[in-house]
Amino acid sequence: MRIHVVTPCVSESLGGVEELAAIASPGVEVTHSRIESGPASIETRVDEALALPGTLAAVRAAGDADAIVIDCMGDPGLEPAREVVPGLVLGPAQASMHVAAMLAQSFSVLAVLDATVPMIEELALRYGLASKLRSVRSIGIPVLELEDDRGRMIDALSAAALAAVEHDGAHAIVLGCTGMVGAADAVAARLDAAGLPGIPVLDPLVTAFKLAEALADLGLRPSRRTYPGP
Amino acid sequence: MRIHVVTPCVSESLGGVEELAAIASPGVEVTHSRIESGPASIETRVDEALALPGTLAAVRAAGDADAIVIDCMGDPGLEPAREVVPGLVLGPAQASMHVAAMLAQSFSVLAVLDATVPMIEELALRYGLASKLRSVRSIGIPVLELEDDRGRMIDALSAAALAAVEHDGAHAIVLGCTGMVGAADAVAARLDAAGLPGIPVLDPLVTAFKLAEALADLGLRPSRRTYPGP
Amino acid sequence: MRIHVVTPCVSESLGGVEELAAIASPGVEVTHSRIESGPASIETRVDEALALPGTLAAVRAAGDADAIVIDCMGDPGLEPAREVVPGLVLGPAQASMHVAAMLAQSFSVLAVLDATVPMIEELALRYGLASKLRSVRSIGIPVLELEDDRGRMIDALSAAALAAVEHDGAHAIVLGCTGMVGAADAVAARLDAAGLPGIPVLDPLVTAFKLAEALADLGLRPSRRTYPGP
Amino acid sequence: MRIHVVTPCVSESLGGVEELAAIASPGVEVTHSRIESGPASIETRVDEALALPGTLAAVRAAGDADAIVIDCMGDPGLEPAREVVPGLVLGPAQASMHVAAMLAQSFSVLAVLDATVPMIEELALRYGLASKLRSVRSIGIPVLELEDDRGRMIDALSAAALAAVEHDGAHAIVLGCTGMVGAADAVAARLDAAGLPGIPVLDPLVTAFKLAEALADLGLRPSRRTYPGP
Amino acid sequence: MRIHVVTPCVSESLGGVEELAAIASPGVEVTHSRIESGPASIETRVDEALALPGTLAAVRAAGDADAIVIDCMGDPGLEPAREVVPGLVLGPAQASMHVAAMLAQSFSVLAVLDATVPMIEELALRYGLASKLRSVRSIGIPVLELEDDRGRMIDALSAAALAAVEHDGAHAIVLGCTGMVGAADAVAARLDAAGLPGIPVLDPLVTAFKLAEALADLGLRPSRRTYPGP
Amino acid sequence: MRIHVVTPCVSESLGGVEELAAIASPGVEVTHSRIESGPASIETRVDEALALPGTLAAVRAAGDADAIVIDCMGDPGLEPAREVVPGLVLGPAQASMHVAAMLAQSFSVLAVLDATVPMIEELALRYGLASKLRSVRSIGIPVLELEDDRGRMIDALSAAALAAVEHDGAHAIVLGCTGMVGAADAVAARLDAAGLPGIPVLDPLVTAFKLAEALADLGLRPSRRTYPGP
Repeated sequence: MRIHVVTPCVSESLGGVEELAAIASPGVEVTHSRIESGPASIETRVDEALALPGTLAAVRAAGDADAIVIDCMGDPGLEPAREVVPGLVLGPAQASMHVAAMLAQSFSVLAVLDATVPMIEELALRYGLASKLRSVRSIGIPVLELEDDRGRMIDALSAAALAAVEHDGAHAIVLGCTGMVGAADAVAARLDAAGLPGIPVLDPLVTAFKLAEALADLGLRPSRRTYPGP
Repeated sequence: MRIHVVTPCVSESLGGVEELAAIASPGVEVTHSRIESGPASIETRVDEALALPGTLAAVRAAGDADAIVIDCMGDPGLEPAREVVPGLVLGPAQASMHVAAMLAQSFSVLAVLDATVPMIEELALRYGLASKLRSVRSIGIPVLELEDDRGRMIDALSAAALAAVEHDGAHAIVLGCTGMVGAADAVAARLDAAGLPGIPVLDPLVTAFKLAEALADLGLRPSRRTYPGP
Repeated sequence: MRIHVVTPCVSESLGGVEELAAIASPGVEVTHSRIESGPASIETRVDEALALPGTLAAVRAAGDADAIVIDCMGDPGLEPAREVVPGLVLGPAQASMHVAAMLAQSFSVLAVLDATVPMIEELALRYGLASKLRSVRSIGIPVLELEDDRGRMIDALSAAALAAVEHDGAHAIVLGCTGMVGAADAVAARLDAAGLPGIPVLDPLVTAFKLAEALADLGLRPSRRTYPGP
Repeated sequence: MRIHVVTPCVSESLGGVEELAAIASPGVEVTHSRIESGPASIETRVDEALALPGTLAAVRAAGDADAIVIDCMGDPGLEPAREVVPGLVLGPAQASMHVAAMLAQSFSVLAVLDATVPMIEELALRYGLASKLRSVRSIGIPVLELEDDRGRMIDALSAAALAAVEHDGAHAIVLGCTGMVGAADAVAARLDAAGLPGIPVLDPLVTAFKLAEALADLGLRPSRRTYPGP
Repeated sequence: MRIHVVTPCVSESLGGVEELAAIASPGVEVTHSRIESGPASIETRVDEALALPGTLAAVRAAGDADAIVIDCMGDPGLEPAREVVPGLVLGPAQASMHVAAMLAQSFSVLAVLDATVPMIEELALRYGLASKLRSVRSIGIPVLELEDDRGRMIDALSAAALAAVEHDGAHAIVLGCTGMVGAADAVAARLDAAGLPGIPVLDPLVTAFKLAEALADLGLRPSRRTYPGP
Repeated sequence: MRIHVVTPCVSESLGGVEELAAIASPGVEVTHSRIESGPASIETRVDEALALPGTLAAVRAAGDADAIVIDCMGDPGLEPAREVVPGLVLGPAQASMHVAAMLAQSFSVLAVLDATVPMIEELALRYGLASKLRSVRSIGIPVLELEDDRGRMIDALSAAALAAVEHDGAHAIVLGCTGMVGAADAVAARLDAAGLPGIPVLDPLVTAFKLAEALADLGLRPSRRTYPGP
């Protein structure tokens, strides 16, 4: 089985391929591509819009991959991509919000910037999960700075997660950017240390990837009634 | 006041400029542009995606227009466009669905093709109006054939409108493509002749245009909290 | 075109006719009447109930007006008025809540008194917009004192608007009484000065009036299926 | 204990007092009044509006009744009446829809005329029970003719109930006019005979009355936060 | 008429029989049983699960009772019990939440422990009343200690009720454990003394009992379509 | 990794262990147990209730399994089981409804008997997915007869799936009993042959199993805030 990750921006990011390869099931190959022209990161609706043609081209170029995962919490191009290829395409926001809803009565998402808060709220509405979303809290760190100081990112995520649980009633936490890959365990540990054990913290890219493995294994694909395509 | 209409495809369509000029309030100028490259019409999510970069460029190029109206029932680019310019941007789907909800307890939309049905249903969900939407019925005529035989289009719309009222419980009808511009009165007359008088039939482009006039006159613009932009 | 404003109480209010005339489109005449007997202002459900017979009489007496606007944020008589006359009737609450929902992801309403808070919350529910309403905040000034000290009113509205944005997550503000006519720009300026630029502040009477112009121009009227009348 | 029934129209109806007296608990007195001027029956929103002043006057005149029940399925004046008197006021629609929701997963209401269908649908929305309402079906008999031929009424109600269960998925039936008092058992028997046993059929006036007994006995009254009054 | 109360745990509790007998209508007999083996109290989902077989046995053994009331705010076994006997079965949570929704725009529930908060939130969702529920606040006293120090319980309930009204927007209060029987009036008095008069405080067991009297008197029973049983 | 399947009835069923072993990822062991006393199959709410103590005992006895899957579409004991063990517990209904909602705009479930229809509808409500559920259709074959004549089962499922897509607007199909394991592909092929290609047909047990693999691999567990336990 091959699962292909498409990074919908032109950053140097490797799309979490290393992390995904580390958790892939035996026999699952991870491949990766990034769009050739478009935004450097996705922090606004304009970034998303400009990323779409390149994303769909990358999806089309992914060939006979068993599943495609889009490497951005805005799920840019998720729905048109399902018209482009007949196979499975998953997005981190949709996958992680549904899994959070399975494991907990409610969840909050931790966004990079204030500007992405309404975008994530709208995704929850589109996916029919608005009643489960308690809040979207911003940590105030741009995508391209997440890597610079991981300690600062973990601190900010942990503080926001704590506030989401204590003040907003969140029972689970979804990290709100695929650039936060690898941070989930540290945030969960911080919550535990703060007296809040057993709060699931979901890494959206990793969650989408493992779901892609599972659903591809079952031969499940998006509905042609919902995504009829051309 | 100048209201600019952006047609998000490369068809020969004039974006209803003639019809809009005919109903514009005194002193309101209507200008029009169409994207320079992109799809010939918008009937799939892929068409929408590929139309976005050109649409945003056209919005940016519209300069000091008092309002911008997007000439497509999918409202492609409506939200990112509100990040691109500080002024008012409206879309036909959003405007006509809200007006229908003001005038009637429920409404149905008449789509061009089966493929656009789930796209319109999703718009109603995103706009928070899913509980008012009784059905989306398709007339089975591609966008680019709408002009070819207006009699056939009116027949098909009237039959679908009748079914929506009688079987789906619609109290108002929204035409589901801006290419249907000018057909609303004829459809309403047919409903009346069929014993169903007083059913509002909304032309989405025209409705968005008049709303743009009204809201621009009041100086209202999209919220910077919802559309913070770069 | 003539748009008629009905004030559903016996106060000396001129129903904002001056303000409306100032923003009316060229060729639009504004006329006004008030009920002959009934409450002095509308601050309770009893006030609303007692205003209804007079309001319907005034609607009927408005003759061949192209549209009727009810001059009260409770939209008293809006629905029965649509049974009384075949033409367009709009209410400030319905019109401004829908416009707010078009321009922003969420909104709050600023009420005169605590007693009107549940009434406005119920209107949002009836109009299908409860999921967009973040809060109704009261400024604690009775309707009949709004005019006495406009500075105090602007101060109170601005403080409540600020709280609604910062604490309740409102992305737009709707003034909650037609007696606040003319205050929207000042409140928006205060929000801007407080570091919250670009928050739409809607004057409900003015919004309903401009919508009435737009929809009357299109010949749109309430659905006979929803308002079948006698 | 005394429970007072207010008939909000000037018809000769006795407000079901006989039927209510027959099922009243020991020690419960039933009194009745009707409005002095207003509509002859309530079949439109205008009828409801014109009934309100008289209804509130009758509520005020009911004196020290332990509870007041409004004798109309539109619950006209229910909310302002709760501002007029400090005690318990109940309406047949609210009471019977809530009881139906307790006993069954879903319900349908059987209305007198098409014109009252949207009014009842709106009540379900206001009461927060829209998701339980499967349909409102009309039997096409005006209120004032219900008494004329009870056989015809029972036939029409039974046919509509059968259709609501079989086609709309209703698990319970609510009669949609207080003028149908006494018909519930006959309709339930017809459903049983048609192979649909165990479908609750609720008489709304009687249900509201017994609920009034129960809640008055507990000293429960409407919330002053929801109905603050003057 | 005989109404039978089933206590779904093996505690020494008398199921509020004394309190219920004191408020029963003339001619209504109250009988009581408790399960023979199972949990000592119900504070977790496991407690509820283990209580079900005994509860259904007790329901079956209740014989020809006119109605059965389950003596626990989790309504354990309410739905299967309606399959076991043909007659009326009510639960305190369902009955009191619906009555609260009739009397007020919104309500909060006061739970014994944090652990029962999500269970009560889920009940509101299942009953279709989630939009009315403002909060579930815990008082931090286990069920079996409620009786030990009633003063402490009243203090804790009053403080939580005050917070629910002032901070969460509750317009009514529902006590969240049938072991709190008899406390409603004291809590309401405390709210009144704190400047919040007229807030209904519902005792769930007593509310369910009086509703059972009322509905049994009307011969109403759960729908066989919803509870078809074997 | 070891995934343990608990069959919550005393039937001879092997809980689909063979089918699950065939699709398990490399290195995943499948173990199975069934309750020692309880119902022979689960077709009513009473069956579910009586299955709970045994199910929780089996969950507790599953020891150090990495995940537990409950082998029944009613998800009996899913929530209390999450209080009993700290690890991952999944149910077929919850897992398959969420996956269906990820792959399609809407879905229908195919139940064994009319009696289970309201139970499945209620699960969709509890899981927050009621707006995605178009219908639950019954095939009229008891659980214990499913195995007897697989041809008859496939025929009945295919006919119901076809009706759900064509008449109810379903975009995906969820099989409504874990006893239908292995039938998904055949039903999808029938839909394809009938002119409806590309409709996902989900086998709920298999879907829950693969999700359990994926989530266990990520170390995700149910939230302790939602399932606090003793």
